[in-house]
Amino acid sequence: MVTNLRNDQAPLYIKVNDKDNTAIIVNEGGLRKGAVFPCGLVLAEGVPQGHKVALTDINEGEEVIRYGHVIGYAERTINRGTWINDTLIKMPAAPPLEKVPLSDKTPAPLEPLEGYTFQGYRNKDGTAGTKNILGITTSVQCVVGVLDYAVKRIKEELLPKYPNVDDVIPLHHHYGCGVAIHAPDAVIPIRTIQNLAKHPNFGGEALVVGLGCEKLVPDRIAPRENIISLQEQKGFKQMIHSIMEMAEERLIKLNSRVRETCPVSDLVIGLQCGGSDAFSGVTANPAVGYAADLFVRGGAAVLFSEVTEVRDAVHLLTPRAVNEEVGRSLIEEMKWYDSYLRRGEADRSANPSPGNKKGGLSNVVEKALGSVAKSGSSPISGVLAPGENARQKGLLFAATPASDFVCGTLQLAAGMNVQIFTTGRGTPYGLAAAPVMKVSTRNALQAQWPDLIDINAGRIASGEASIEEVGWEIFRMVLDIASGRKQTWADHWGLHNDLCLFNPAPVT
Amino acid sequence: MVTNLRNDQAPLYIKVNDKDNTAIIVNEGGLRKGAVFPCGLVLAEGVPQGHKVALTDINEGEEVIRYGHVIGYAERTINRGTWINDTLIKMPAAPPLEKVPLSDKTPAPLEPLEGYTFQGYRNKDGTAGTKNILGITTSVQCVVGVLDYAVKRIKEELLPKYPNVDDVIPLHHHYGCGVAIHAPDAVIPIRTIQNLAKHPNFGGEALVVGLGCEKLVPDRIAPRENIISLQEQKGFKQMIHSIMEMAEERLIKLNSRVRETCPVSDLVIGLQCGGSDAFSGVTANPAVGYAADLFVRGGAAVLFSEVTEVRDAVHLLTPRAVNEEVGRSLIEEMKWYDSYLRRGEADRSANPSPGNKKGGLSNVVEKALGSVAKSGSSPISGVLAPGENARQKGLLFAATPASDFVCGTLQLAAGMNVQIFTTGRGTPYGLAAAPVMKVSTRNALQAQWPDLIDINAGRIASGEASIEEVGWEIFRMVLDIASGRKQTWADHWGLHNDLCLFNPAPVT
Repeated sequence: MVTNLRNDQAPLYIKVNDKDNTAIIVNEGGLRKGAVFPCGLVLAEGVPQGHKVALTDINEGEEVIRYGHVIGYAERTINRGTWINDTLIKMPAAPPLEKVPLSDKTPAPLEPLEGYTFQGYRNKDGTAGTKNILGITTSVQCVVGVLDYAVKRIKEELLPKYPNVDDVIPLHHHYGCGVAIHAPDAVIPIRTIQNLAKHPNFGGEALVVGLGCEKLVPDRIAPRENIISLQEQKGFKQMIHSIMEMAEERLIKLNSRVRETCPVSDLVIGLQCGGSDAFSGVTANPAVGYAADLFVRGGAAVLFSEVTEVRDAVHLLTPRAVNEEVGRSLIEEMKWYDSYLRRGEADRSANPSPGNKKGGLSNVVEKALGSVAKSGSSPISGVLAPGENARQKGLLFAATPASDFVCGTLQLAAGMNVQIFTTGRGTPYGLAAAPVMKVSTRNALQAQWPDLIDINAGRIASGEASIEEVGWEIFRMVLDIASGRKQTWADHWGLHNDLCLFNPAPVT
Repeated sequence: MVTNLRNDQAPLYIKVNDKDNTAIIVNEGGLRKGAVFPCGLVLAEGVPQGHKVALTDINEGEEVIRYGHVIGYAERTINRGTWINDTLIKMPAAPPLEKVPLSDKTPAPLEPLEGYTFQGYRNKDGTAGTKNILGITTSVQCVVGVLDYAVKRIKEELLPKYPNVDDVIPLHHHYGCGVAIHAPDAVIPIRTIQNLAKHPNFGGEALVVGLGCEKLVPDRIAPRENIISLQEQKGFKQMIHSIMEMAEERLIKLNSRVRETCPVSDLVIGLQCGGSDAFSGVTANPAVGYAADLFVRGGAAVLFSEVTEVRDAVHLLTPRAVNEEVGRSLIEEMKWYDSYLRRGEADRSANPSPGNKKGGLSNVVEKALGSVAKSGSSPISGVLAPGENARQKGLLFAATPASDFVCGTLQLAAGMNVQIFTTGRGTPYGLAAAPVMKVSTRNALQAQWPDLIDINAGRIASGEASIEEVGWEIFRMVLDIASGRKQTWADHWGLHNDLCLFNPAPVT
């Protein structure tokens, strides 16, 4: 699959599938007009790194093929050796949801993988934490000023006394009041907030700070004994005192916990890509897909997501569903999203981003084909609607927007306790509630950001490592991170993004 | 208007308008069945404080009147002395937008008010700051982990060297990528972010931290020399170094600024209510309305907002428009919001909140009638669409959701440099970018939260102060706050809510 040349000066491209009439340029900085490849191909013009070159003459209207699939049709005749940028490709229609095959090619279950464990915090509900955190959530945005003040004091005055507790984090969100709480889609933000409070890394001890007059009544998030309502407090000082007092009771409990050996099946792995480029689909994403298969073989739950990015490859996913019902659930989520976009007068052309395009991705079809590589080769055993909690194992499609920060928040609500994040352009993304491991698609990114990238899958393109090797590296590093033996760069620097709820219902 | 009894034990109610067949109970803790009022009215059952009592027998289907307006129709016969809770009232239809009168009762301009000034920071663009802040905004959520790290170091290592600078604040938002940036409604979050960066309290020196591949390209927010793009940096350490270096250049400039005497007309006053109760419309809001008139007379811009809360009183507003065009703009904003709610299958019954109802507000009509009292008696001289900047003076309707945090963010984008916030149930709300002054509607709230409430308008209900007196107090306190002579309680404790963008367009 990869042309294994080690000399960076020699022109090098990657052709993924035998059917492809395109390949992407591997060389750092791209290649100039006239560059000659070992196969005899001569570049008709300069082509940037990661961008596509035509391997054959493609007549106007003919198929442009990558990953063995049609990513579009030639807007005009494209000669062999031409740079195929997005203006040369007409995007095909999205696969019609009524016609995609359901569960007709379900892969055989992969061979179980035994003998791998991690050191986690066992929870009463059967889940396991990869961190030991006091989470303090909110029923409404109004209270966050008070909560932040309290958390600062808890961190300064209380946390040092409880060294087994990793962190105290306030869960901000923009919901809770001033929202159409009875609108049909309100179920999404509400269950997200509910499930975030139950995240395995909070050990069943999350507190809720509420105001008292909000629409999202705190009782919907946690039992009464875990709730502090500010309107019941006598002034600011008592608010802080009450929060700190309740926090300390939980810190004592959390501090008594110790890591114990847990099977891989206690992990809920979130897969995500952000700042993708044309290498994502040939280096990082396939390596993550290999690791995803290892986790599924070990009995873990593995979440892949990003509706708008898999929408154009859904016909490759539904056949993998474990049964027709799961296939139909997948279709239902796509339909809901199609209608959500339509209602806002948007469509799938809103993706990819300008940065994706600079990175060589022509359109969402090409992006989707690369994105689904993360899902590996397992049967798809379940589908989660946005904000739902994962209650089963295996490869699950967690329906979320592709937005990195919104997807991350929803995967946390699903119970994700380690996230594997592939990036081509580079992002410093991180989450306070669970570790985010960054996998780069290109050597150049690793070289540029050595203090942010955890694993470099760019070595696959340069022939220094195979997909399998990087896949195993990812698998092993996740076990180290989940066990607290290794820290991600994002956690090392404390880089943590905001929780960003998905609220498709109106604000009022 | 107010029954001026000083003895808290004697039954006391407030009837606002001669036409009213309802009144609200003033006594703390409410009144028991059998309580006898000076007018001879006897309570047929217990009535909580702030809740309504029937002053006459009201037959099934007859009008229930408060503020001289119909707030609904009796669901069944309501006897004199009965507690009128929300289940007894059928809500009237919203005023039809096609039929409301436009600009037919424009009030005469109020008499100019001379001789009042504040000490502000004069900006090159003609605006004035009430604080001197280094604002660092973002083009996308991805970067906030890095930005927060940098801001922490700037505050610790640089800010102490520049004592004339009040604060360094990172402007987080959930926008920038993973959004339908070409959807029609995307204009709202985009111009909000653009206008936030130009807030008068940032003195024209706001920086932008961007990633490099986001959809909202940073050039749309600020000139190139104010932008740091993380993907252009060599690793995390250089990111922090670059941000700190650019921050220090701006801190030097900001530090050289001094407060100077500015006319009241340099103020942009935002009016808001949150956690409203039945007293809001008779104490705090009318007092704020009186202060609003003083500011308009002084030549300031005064913003009142909250579409869903004025929607049911729009027929009282459009006649006050300075001309038909302004009246039509007001209607256009209402129409847009009606359609936005409809598209999300929500309606105006989503407001009020459970807390509003506990406070005695039966429905959004009653809430609206109390809410518009904040707007005083001036002509309405302009309308701002959500996220637009105020470019004129006088009383302006800034169309925003009623959500406290979303409204506050949009008022900041409009250039609001002091916010007056009335509350009945109580909220600790605050903003980092501009001071928020809290006005309580009830004595009990001031007594309960003495370290959060800045002015108590509850004294109007208990007869200790008149609307005019509290109005002048608010006016003078705003000038003190705007001058940095007085600090709000929210700023004293550092209670600052998140910026919460209004994004009615889809995420992708």
